[in-house]
Amino acid sequence: MSSRSTLKDVQSAHDDRQLSINRVGVRRVKHPIYIQLSHIKQPSLGEFSLYVDLAANQKGTHMSRFLQILHANPIEISAVNFKNLVKKVGQELGSTEAEVTADFSVFLEKEAPISKEKGLVDYVVSLKGELRQNEVTLTLSVQVPVTSLCPCSKDISAYGAHNQRSHIIINAVLLDDIWIEDLVRIAEKQASCEVYAILKRPDEKYVTEYAYDHPKFVEDMVRDVATSLLQEQRVGAFSVTSENFESIHNHSAFAMIARDK
Amino acid sequence: MSSRSTLKDVQSAHDDRQLSINRVGVRRVKHPIYIQLSHIKQPSLGEFSLYVDLAANQKGTHMSRFLQILHANPIEISAVNFKNLVKKVGQELGSTEAEVTADFSVFLEKEAPISKEKGLVDYVVSLKGELRQNEVTLTLSVQVPVTSLCPCSKDISAYGAHNQRSHIIINAVLLDDIWIEDLVRIAEKQASCEVYAILKRPDEKYVTEYAYDHPKFVEDMVRDVATSLLQEQRVGAFSVTSENFESIHNHSAFAMIARDK
Amino acid sequence: MSSRSTLKDVQSAHDDRQLSINRVGVRRVKHPIYIQLSHIKQPSLGEFSLYVDLAANQKGTHMSRFLQILHANPIEISAVNFKNLVKKVGQELGSTEAEVTADFSVFLEKEAPISKEKGLVDYVVSLKGELRQNEVTLTLSVQVPVTSLCPCSKDISAYGAHNQRSHIIINAVLLDDIWIEDLVRIAEKQASCEVYAILKRPDEKYVTEYAYDHPKFVEDMVRDVATSLLQEQRVGAFSVTSENFESIHNHSAFAMIARDK
Amino acid sequence: MSSRSTLKDVQSAHDDRQLSINRVGVRRVKHPIYIQLSHIKQPSLGEFSLYVDLAANQKGTHMSRFLQILHANPIEISAVNFKNLVKKVGQELGSTEAEVTADFSVFLEKEAPISKEKGLVDYVVSLKGELRQNEVTLTLSVQVPVTSLCPCSKDISAYGAHNQRSHIIINAVLLDDIWIEDLVRIAEKQASCEVYAILKRPDEKYVTEYAYDHPKFVEDMVRDVATSLLQEQRVGAFSVTSENFESIHNHSAFAMIARDK
Repeated sequence: MSSRSTLKDVQSAHDDRQLSINRVGVRRVKHPIYIQLSHIKQPSLGEFSLYVDLAANQKGTHMSRFLQILHANPIEISAVNFKNLVKKVGQELGSTEAEVTADFSVFLEKEAPISKEKGLVDYVVSLKGELRQNEVTLTLSVQVPVTSLCPCSKDISAYGAHNQRSHIIINAVLLDDIWIEDLVRIAEKQASCEVYAILKRPDEKYVTEYAYDHPKFVEDMVRDVATSLLQEQRVGAFSVTSENFESIHNHSAFAMIARDK
Repeated sequence: MSSRSTLKDVQSAHDDRQLSINRVGVRRVKHPIYIQLSHIKQPSLGEFSLYVDLAANQKGTHMSRFLQILHANPIEISAVNFKNLVKKVGQELGSTEAEVTADFSVFLEKEAPISKEKGLVDYVVSLKGELRQNEVTLTLSVQVPVTSLCPCSKDISAYGAHNQRSHIIINAVLLDDIWIEDLVRIAEKQASCEVYAILKRPDEKYVTEYAYDHPKFVEDMVRDVATSLLQEQRVGAFSVTSENFESIHNHSAFAMIARDK
Repeated sequence: MSSRSTLKDVQSAHDDRQLSINRVGVRRVKHPIYIQLSHIKQPSLGEFSLYVDLAANQKGTHMSRFLQILHANPIEISAVNFKNLVKKVGQELGSTEAEVTADFSVFLEKEAPISKEKGLVDYVVSLKGELRQNEVTLTLSVQVPVTSLCPCSKDISAYGAHNQRSHIIINAVLLDDIWIEDLVRIAEKQASCEVYAILKRPDEKYVTEYAYDHPKFVEDMVRDVATSLLQEQRVGAFSVTSENFESIHNHSAFAMIARDK
Repeated sequence: MSSRSTLKDVQSAHDDRQLSINRVGVRRVKHPIYIQLSHIKQPSLGEFSLYVDLAANQKGTHMSRFLQILHANPIEISAVNFKNLVKKVGQELGSTEAEVTADFSVFLEKEAPISKEKGLVDYVVSLKGELRQNEVTLTLSVQVPVTSLCPCSKDISAYGAHNQRSHIIINAVLLDDIWIEDLVRIAEKQASCEVYAILKRPDEKYVTEYAYDHPKFVEDMVRDVATSLLQEQRVGAFSVTSENFESIHNHSAFAMIARDK
């Protein structure tokens, strides 16, 4: 059969269902990356999704090209490079829209509050770039583990207060360059206390008392982070969520604020 | 200290940050449910999120009430009951907006195509109800495991064709009552082949040849499901995605169509 | 080709690699179940693995039979029924060894300590049955969410103490019938405090102060649970682990004790 | 209270429950690593567990020391370095037993079979070191994604054959140095076909036909990998599993062979 010997390009055939496709491409592609932080370039492991739109009259996209783009380029995660990557995906696939998401972890060094012992805290980050009308919009998401301590529990109890690990997630459209560290700090500052990798006994005393002195409801944490984000010029539309993995329940407390600007 | 002996209601205090909260409540709450299918009421296990909005001047919501609502009511998953549940959440928490999501699995009995052996296939389902201006909008999501077989691989190869398990996910705003089974069937009909729990040898021959006779790209699957959904009167805005867990790669092929109506 | 028209039984062919297989079968099979608790029979959703051994001279097992066994029988999770299920797997597959594992969740009703409000707490359970020499050995595993409060943090701090949700997991060979609830209670009694579904303010005061009055290291929790299990006649070899999702770190503290008897 | 001002070392107190603890330490600690592969040193992200045993008379271990060991040392994953890391954990915690596990991903470059396009395939790896009587035993585990094609489906069908992605997992006690790549290759060679990152059309034709020419049951894959491992001098006791994510079912086929040597 001739089509077999010539390896017909089935994907390029005409499609007559009259339905454009919003997103088509590859998902859960792991690839090594370098992340540009404020002081260092840090190696990490990215999980990528790479999509384009597909016109109504085109049967299929060319999946292998997405992988070739990844492989041909050292993947360095900075605003400029990521925008270029997204544009390249659009160009090589012949599409006017493209979307690339990279999920990865970063490590930030932190000193313990009293002993000054240094350790690394890891944060889950996601960067999304969307190409539309030759413009790439970047959206940065950081998941920040923190301590939350319940004001109600503190207030009504003769001693103690329930506290727990929480995840604050900021998701922000970027209007200008901003370091990942800057978004992380915005979240950490508004928690009952931040978390650390290494805490010696004097540090543990410090964070215990600090959290007790800064009780926050899940509502307080998202309001205080949102207040900071509203003042942050480099951030456009955003959402902030907090999920508190309650120490006294087997479920979470959750709050979310979303704002356009 | 008097506030402690009287157990002050900290959550009801006034808040002066001028920031309303879009969603606040509880998350990852497991609760037993009954699902109303077309022929039977099936017991299952639901994972719930229950949220309300919170006015700018109110400090906190009352988390325990969400759990009391779940516990006070036999949770039967049908359109009418779910709408009532969402309204009840809004009322009891004193909010004008409320949102409840239940994630659960359903089992549908299926006969093998030749041997007629009966088995159960499980589907992951999510039902969301959103209360706004006294109206509850329901959105139903079903994840349907199917077989996809690659038309390109079939066409260019002297024999064989790579195939794999795929997940088709339909997410649909409901304009009228529709059975979970109806959405599942819309997805299964458009795959290269549906999957089964029990297949004897004559069945395995049948599904192997059926898939080979119905090759579909990931683009074809979402287009064909979207075509069905556009004709379905009971469905409003929808998205359909397919993720093919490629047998020849360590990543997925993915496509998505979203339409308002 | 004749083998095709007669649907040759490839699996029953002779194998000459001289290698017996320890376990072969099906995995991640979802099936509805009923769990026999002390007071009620509770519907749930089981995720099953069903395996047998395979002699060195046999090419393959018959995968569809595992599913037929599940489908033919109402799956009721009790010691007697589960042993029969495992034996049936061995018989129908013609094997001397068989292993069945069912993972599921149970709900136990709990009264809040002061308000007596009733709510449901969910527990992840796993039951394994292993057939060897016509005997089925049952191993029961329960994952119990609890509160842990750090004795060091309490002792060194002027006020407060970090606490968090922990998972105590007991894994026990059963020498005699024992209720799932009994193992759950053994774990809950030794925690800093148990967790609840619904807590009103007087309850929250109670659990906050109770946890503060019962500080436990991760080491204390496994030692205290192990002490109970050593005295429990119905339990043979066991392990107990505790994982504390530290509120002051982004990692867990962990301890494990394993004992034969 | 004097104990507070001097920050009493609660963990070092005497314990009178007469119960030694098998494993105590920290879990789910993320830390940057470098992996020594045969040709390059590759940056990656490790998730660590670090444990020691604890004598019956000792109340607790010193959790922060585990983190200090990680932070003080560039974590390079090679046999020699990992053994030293495990010994260091034992020494610094004053224990005779220690156990460290690192879970990470590696990327191996692979040429497509016909086009010779280069791409990266990722593999999930786990390295465990156990210190007992001054000796560290290393166990290496690799999860290798491959294609499996069903011999029964091929044999009974007029055309086509169901195939799918499978995970072969080799878990091997190391008697001598062995490259991660060596274990990966042992698994890939015995599959119906290996998987690739980038496949152009001539490659897709090749892998489709290759898989069809090399049908394997899940039983065949573990037997053929086990045969290779039995001949591999650098490997001691091992297990090999294959999980086939069946394209015609919503569950997996699974087989396991374990052997001491």
